[in-house]
Amino acid sequence: MSPISLKQEQEKLEDLYQYIFPYLLQTERVLQDVATRGKGMIPEIVNYVVQAGGKRLRPALVVLSAQLGGTQSDDPITVGAASELIHLATLVHDDIVDRAVLRHQKPTAAVQFGDEVAILLGDYLYVEAFSLLASLNDPQIVDLFARSTRTMCQGEINQVRRRFQLDLSLSEYLAFIDHKTATLMGAAMRGGARLARLSTDQATALGHYGWNLGMAFQIIDDTLDLVGEEGVTGKTLRTDLANGKLTLPLIWLREKLGAEEREKFLGFLREPTMENVQLIISWVKESGAIKEGLRQAANFANQANTALQSFPDSTPHKTLSAIAQYIVTRTR
Amino acid sequence: MSPISLKQEQEKLEDLYQYIFPYLLQTERVLQDVATRGKGMIPEIVNYVVQAGGKRLRPALVVLSAQLGGTQSDDPITVGAASELIHLATLVHDDIVDRAVLRHQKPTAAVQFGDEVAILLGDYLYVEAFSLLASLNDPQIVDLFARSTRTMCQGEINQVRRRFQLDLSLSEYLAFIDHKTATLMGAAMRGGARLARLSTDQATALGHYGWNLGMAFQIIDDTLDLVGEEGVTGKTLRTDLANGKLTLPLIWLREKLGAEEREKFLGFLREPTMENVQLIISWVKESGAIKEGLRQAANFANQANTALQSFPDSTPHKTLSAIAQYIVTRTR
Repeated sequence: MSPISLKQEQEKLEDLYQYIFPYLLQTERVLQDVATRGKGMIPEIVNYVVQAGGKRLRPALVVLSAQLGGTQSDDPITVGAASELIHLATLVHDDIVDRAVLRHQKPTAAVQFGDEVAILLGDYLYVEAFSLLASLNDPQIVDLFARSTRTMCQGEINQVRRRFQLDLSLSEYLAFIDHKTATLMGAAMRGGARLARLSTDQATALGHYGWNLGMAFQIIDDTLDLVGEEGVTGKTLRTDLANGKLTLPLIWLREKLGAEEREKFLGFLREPTMENVQLIISWVKESGAIKEGLRQAANFANQANTALQSFPDSTPHKTLSAIAQYIVTRTR
Repeated sequence: MSPISLKQEQEKLEDLYQYIFPYLLQTERVLQDVATRGKGMIPEIVNYVVQAGGKRLRPALVVLSAQLGGTQSDDPITVGAASELIHLATLVHDDIVDRAVLRHQKPTAAVQFGDEVAILLGDYLYVEAFSLLASLNDPQIVDLFARSTRTMCQGEINQVRRRFQLDLSLSEYLAFIDHKTATLMGAAMRGGARLARLSTDQATALGHYGWNLGMAFQIIDDTLDLVGEEGVTGKTLRTDLANGKLTLPLIWLREKLGAEEREKFLGFLREPTMENVQLIISWVKESGAIKEGLRQAANFANQANTALQSFPDSTPHKTLSAIAQYIVTRTR
């Protein structure tokens, strides 16, 4: 297994998914069914977010983890669809909370249908998710995703409450992204392991892969929020700055600055006008803070792959390794 | 069993609950635990809504239904607490959607903590609810409440979309309150029946009781929204008018009016200024529309009690009948 390289040419996610394509196709069908069986406006608004695209990373993780454990059942499709619905529900609600207007090159659900409908849509997606999970008749599976969803809500509430608190420490930031992303990706891997009835040690190892992948994923996401292009990422950028959320590159830069420069920098952060946001971004780019973000993301991605070491070589194993590489070199 | 009377002196709900008091006390403990085991801000904000009060009608229905079936287990406490959490989650989100500021004599969660935190708080309560339900290891129970929660979300979305559509028919209104309230109360009764492993016929009868009770409850709620006093009901009133939601008394009055008067009435509804709201309310009071609301609520409450006829006389039976009487004579 080769270590993560930041210079490697980016593979396409679709190519990585080739091996599990039939499973992901069936996942889409389950998501479609969720939309179709709703009444009134439901099919239209559920379809709007389900068909918007997205990487389907969580369903892929569930399926690959279960495959690594040699399972042949269709249960990973159900659990994968549920994990995607939970993810979509959090996106719909987070986009209201963050006042984002663009997601996957389209208006967010809140912009398209209004905050009120978006609140209820998120609720609907949550209920569908837990309904799918409960259909497997395995309380451990429900418990796994209930825990991580709780953690996500807690993390988001605490992040809202810490907005514009510019003394946020690196470890507080890491706790936020643990809650926001890493925990659910860990649960997706653990979910697959549970379906394959793997040993506790193996499930823990796969959970570590998912958690580290999630940490890498979110650091890259937060870095793209600073220096990405909306035309490429397809979502509203600089929302973190607008909402007073400190992310890794900003925290790293803050610590590097002398007292006088730091005051100036914090002043920009405190008042994220268009002009100040531009100044912050130039500063971040010149300082090497982006490189530091990528470096730390690559570290987590390497940790993810290390967690897979005890598993024999196989196509799902190779695919998971390639996904970790993809995560840190992606541009959207 | 005596028929529902609108003139009967109102019993206190606490007196009706006396027989199931130990169960409701344990329900409170479960709700407390949900708050306490959260991290960060969670205990404070969950406690805020859990301790705000409320009638605990859904937990009472689960317990009484299970008792009617002769069950001795503690499972009704778990299911009752879950049904209350679902109810609280919908209140927290509906109060954002309806821009309500007061609930149980206190600022709504949205006003107290901000819309963002309130959105995430509602999510947290939903997850806790389904987590509790799944802990019983009975997919039928999860399915029952997942269905009714889905129905609630669907109903609320469709109601948002029909705001200020002043041609709303009585049957559309009845469908809204079916979704908003009656379905969950039906599920509470069916949940108790499931825990007691009652026959399909018995479960259906108890479901009918709950559904009809919910219809009566919501018609009274909507009537109190028009003519109640905030000091007594403890919540923001006239939100239906402000949000362009037509309710039974308004629909009834609209149909009674001649063409000219109707245009005037609809004009007031279209622009719910403080002055116009006062005019609408006087009109509603004078017209007999409130009496009509109470009459129709009493009809549903009578239907609720009729559904109990096949069950032998017992304390839970008597209590359920008394609750139906309470529902239509309550002032808050």
